Amino acid sequence: MEGCRAPLLNGWITPFIMGFLLCMSIPLASAKVRRYRWEVTYELQSPDCLEKLVIAINGRTPGPTIMAQQGDTVIVEVKNGLLTENTAIHWHGIRQIGTPWSDGTEGVTQCPILPGETFVYKFVVDRPGTYIYHAHYGMQRSAGLYGSIHVSLPDGISEPFAYDYDRNIVLNDWWHKTTHEQAAGLSSIPFVWVKEPQSLLINGRGWFNCSQAGTAVCNSTNPQCSPFVLTVVPGKTYRLRISSLASLSAFNFEIEGHNMTVVETDGHYVEPFVVKNLNIYSGETYSVLVVADQEPSRNYWAALNVVSRKPDTPTGLAIFNYYPNHPRRRPPTAPPAGPLWNDTEYRLNQSLKIRARRGYVYPPPTTTDRVITLLNTQNRIDGHTRWAVNNISFTLPHTPYLIALKHKLHHTFSQSAPPETYDRANYDIFKQAANPNATYSDAVYRLKFNSTVDIILQNANSMVPNNSETHPWHLHGHDFWVLGHGPGVFDPVNDPLRKYNLVDPIMKNTVAVHPYGWTAIRFVADNPGVWAFHCHIESHFFMGMGIVFEEGVERVGRLPAAIMGCGDSHRLPRH
Amino acid sequence: MEGCRAPLLNGWITPFIMGFLLCMSIPLASAKVRRYRWEVTYELQSPDCLEKLVIAINGRTPGPTIMAQQGDTVIVEVKNGLLTENTAIHWHGIRQIGTPWSDGTEGVTQCPILPGETFVYKFVVDRPGTYIYHAHYGMQRSAGLYGSIHVSLPDGISEPFAYDYDRNIVLNDWWHKTTHEQAAGLSSIPFVWVKEPQSLLINGRGWFNCSQAGTAVCNSTNPQCSPFVLTVVPGKTYRLRISSLASLSAFNFEIEGHNMTVVETDGHYVEPFVVKNLNIYSGETYSVLVVADQEPSRNYWAALNVVSRKPDTPTGLAIFNYYPNHPRRRPPTAPPAGPLWNDTEYRLNQSLKIRARRGYVYPPPTTTDRVITLLNTQNRIDGHTRWAVNNISFTLPHTPYLIALKHKLHHTFSQSAPPETYDRANYDIFKQAANPNATYSDAVYRLKFNSTVDIILQNANSMVPNNSETHPWHLHGHDFWVLGHGPGVFDPVNDPLRKYNLVDPIMKNTVAVHPYGWTAIRFVADNPGVWAFHCHIESHFFMGMGIVFEEGVERVGRLPAAIMGCGDSHRLPRH
Repeated sequence: MEGCRAPLLNGWITPFIMGFLLCMSIPLASAKVRRYRWEVTYELQSPDCLEKLVIAINGRTPGPTIMAQQGDTVIVEVKNGLLTENTAIHWHGIRQIGTPWSDGTEGVTQCPILPGETFVYKFVVDRPGTYIYHAHYGMQRSAGLYGSIHVSLPDGISEPFAYDYDRNIVLNDWWHKTTHEQAAGLSSIPFVWVKEPQSLLINGRGWFNCSQAGTAVCNSTNPQCSPFVLTVVPGKTYRLRISSLASLSAFNFEIEGHNMTVVETDGHYVEPFVVKNLNIYSGETYSVLVVADQEPSRNYWAALNVVSRKPDTPTGLAIFNYYPNHPRRRPPTAPPAGPLWNDTEYRLNQSLKIRARRGYVYPPPTTTDRVITLLNTQNRIDGHTRWAVNNISFTLPHTPYLIALKHKLHHTFSQSAPPETYDRANYDIFKQAANPNATYSDAVYRLKFNSTVDIILQNANSMVPNNSETHPWHLHGHDFWVLGHGPGVFDPVNDPLRKYNLVDPIMKNTVAVHPYGWTAIRFVADNPGVWAFHCHIESHFFMGMGIVFEEGVERVGRLPAAIMGCGDSHRLPRH
Repeated sequence: MEGCRAPLLNGWITPFIMGFLLCMSIPLASAKVRRYRWEVTYELQSPDCLEKLVIAINGRTPGPTIMAQQGDTVIVEVKNGLLTENTAIHWHGIRQIGTPWSDGTEGVTQCPILPGETFVYKFVVDRPGTYIYHAHYGMQRSAGLYGSIHVSLPDGISEPFAYDYDRNIVLNDWWHKTTHEQAAGLSSIPFVWVKEPQSLLINGRGWFNCSQAGTAVCNSTNPQCSPFVLTVVPGKTYRLRISSLASLSAFNFEIEGHNMTVVETDGHYVEPFVVKNLNIYSGETYSVLVVADQEPSRNYWAALNVVSRKPDTPTGLAIFNYYPNHPRRRPPTAPPAGPLWNDTEYRLNQSLKIRARRGYVYPPPTTTDRVITLLNTQNRIDGHTRWAVNNISFTLPHTPYLIALKHKLHHTFSQSAPPETYDRANYDIFKQAANPNATYSDAVYRLKFNSTVDIILQNANSMVPNNSETHPWHLHGHDFWVLGHGPGVFDPVNDPLRKYNLVDPIMKNTVAVHPYGWTAIRFVADNPGVWAFHCHIESHFFMGMGIVFEEGVERVGRLPAAIMGCGDSHRLPRH
């Protein structure tokens, strides 16, 4: 156990991954196997009072929360109970060290799971913290296929902060159009956009005004859409594990009249800081501590507001219920409206506050082996509206990269090297750009194993005048250090010197790139496999906003036959 | 060419299949390869003015009409352009002699085609006539994936009837709920029924009253939903090739003021008879001759009405336009309302009129080797509403039967023999029956190769009091002789003697079983393969109303690797 705790307590010295490997080599006395049996099905449900087909796990959306302890092996048997649709589930934030085929990323690490078939995901949860899982196939996440993963510390080890109760808060946005229809619109010429969500969900519950429901089945008294109630005992401290599975929206979450102390993000301890409200982007998780320290004779609103995009969705509401008040008693006040939706500086400043907690810092390598600059743009290709990085709009191949790279099926995807940067001298990120040379590609960034890689994510104007969106980028298979954020164009000479935090940067798996801004990250390519890196907005990745990294694929063991069955993997021998 | 024509003209003597094989052994001078490249995609369309996602082929629903000549080889490269859904296409009425893997029946003859992949169907169209194609996977046919196949005679050979022009009429029913939602409802407890269709489509065009559309996009002036116009020249004779792809409805088709002479059904010439209107069931095709012999100064309605179920859908309308009147000029009269919806006798009598055309009769074997009686009932199993035959509700296995039987993967489906009959002595077909012993099964009827098989389809009351539905049963891989239809309970002693037509029965691939009635068919199990036989109502087959026959599977050649990739076919060696 000492070998395992050492890197946590002594992280200034021991490199992170080294420490982890050391930890793995010493069996944890408490390590268990956590086995789940799930069936994925379509269900008619009313998350925001309007009846709609959802994709559920064992009948529920959000799906069951996976509860495990650090070092446990999680086995999830996923039976695809859909009629004609395949599926795949990604374990977001779990690095899949030694099990890259369990990452659940269709087209990257596996073929999809066919209807009627069962795929077994098996992986070790090597770090404590708050993670999520969700479909990584088409836009199925938007249809409701998602949930939480909570990994606790081994017995006898404590978090570096105290709380009385642990509660889960999953945030999402919700549309009434099916994801099939949304996707068809995104692929159409002219482009058909689903517009802003009809409602925001807190733990799967929202509220839509049924008087606007037309001929749809909508019942505002359906218990499925009664607001989530978080009951608190006066004086107690609550750890809220907040995660965003949003398809599109950047969120601001606030509990009326209560401060929140941020203590964890993406499985890493944060040097505590206090906020009135928390900005959270799709794919991020946060733990915040909230003390029930307000006047206890009433209830308070928990409010979810859209930021970064001009909101056209009512505030999502839950009830922060002081025991023993009636849990359904509406607070007497108006719900918090959140910060100004277009106050980018407010959000940038909150991002800059997030640093690793003292005593739990893993310092990054002080130098890097490679810098890849990724310009994020909206483009038009052959009449289609797309997103691109460095003018390349990503498409998934039909043979998953992990199989293609391991088995050298090089004809299954482009062998050209994707660009390391963009034409910085001539590109004006503040202007609507035509980007006339944008192309589709499924080429891969191949990384030298164990090398250190910096990524500069450079935001730009979209195809709409005076508009730049927030893009939360998520890296599979790794945590990265967040070296810095800044407004405007990244300056490769001065910004690393003046704006990089090489002392106590937070490690994360998902980070926002703010409108017209840049975000710099660093990671070590030490996890053999093939890993997606993409904007976590469901439609943006669908429209090409992503890339793929390969590193040390020659070190990956024999691939399980269960990930094969599509594209050219058909032709491989099976065992 | 003589070798090929012989069985048609001399069918009284030459057994049908023998004649076909003879034909195949003599290369037709005119035999061509007809190659089609299709992409299956979701599209936003408005077939009845209300915008809805449809599954289209090359952007259209109905898809392209396949035009070929007898003896041609048809090659259809189907690219699955759906995002997360698989597909498979069945060539309905094509017997697939020698190509049982091209039947396109997911779970029976192939694994589904994955998104992004291309499957090549290749088969010979060995008989002239009117056929259809459609998805045979989940309920995708209902989403719009269907079209027509027209096979003409070889050059220099004429039909035994004359006409000036050949026109295609495809009939369908249409719902606004997605097929995913419909299927989820059918699988739910309690059962959720989609109810009657919102509109009826003639060549893919219907009309819905947009004032009832709620918040849906609906535009009654959208050209996509302008009525189909059939322009005729006064005095000319039109061959209308009419087919029904209905998901649910039994149809009656009528052209106001014009008689129709029935001359073909399911690729077989009919001894001509005249009708005022034509009953047509899902999966059937008819050719009728219509003479433009009415007052030419006006247009007339072509009207599509629902029969057998109490209609709750407006009459489907097309315009029978006398040239040179304006094609959009509405006829001055009310559209035909069709026969009484519940006049079963009227429909039974029309069925009884359908006999093989003189000179084109293929007499059936006079005796049979096996009689299988199939009681059609509605059942409840574990709380689910289901259909069953002989109390067995069919489920598809995950390894297609053709692969499982050829490769002896006997663990992949039930090896028990499904029942040959039901408890005739104690079952009252006129009563609501609880059928408490109904079970699910994927067992197969194994037929002796080249044996003659009779099937007695016995209808019964559904779970609704005083209700019995019409079930159009479709047999893959064969035509069958329609030996007889009758009301009430089939009498195995007297009905074969008194009611069977062994002289000039029509051959078909789809035949209706009328409410509370029976239908007897005969076929020769001479086509090596595995063949579905099922109610062609999309929801009924989905709910278990079907069986599967195996015959001579040991004679089937090496299976193409392309049909594999699901269930236990993964494990087979590939070449």
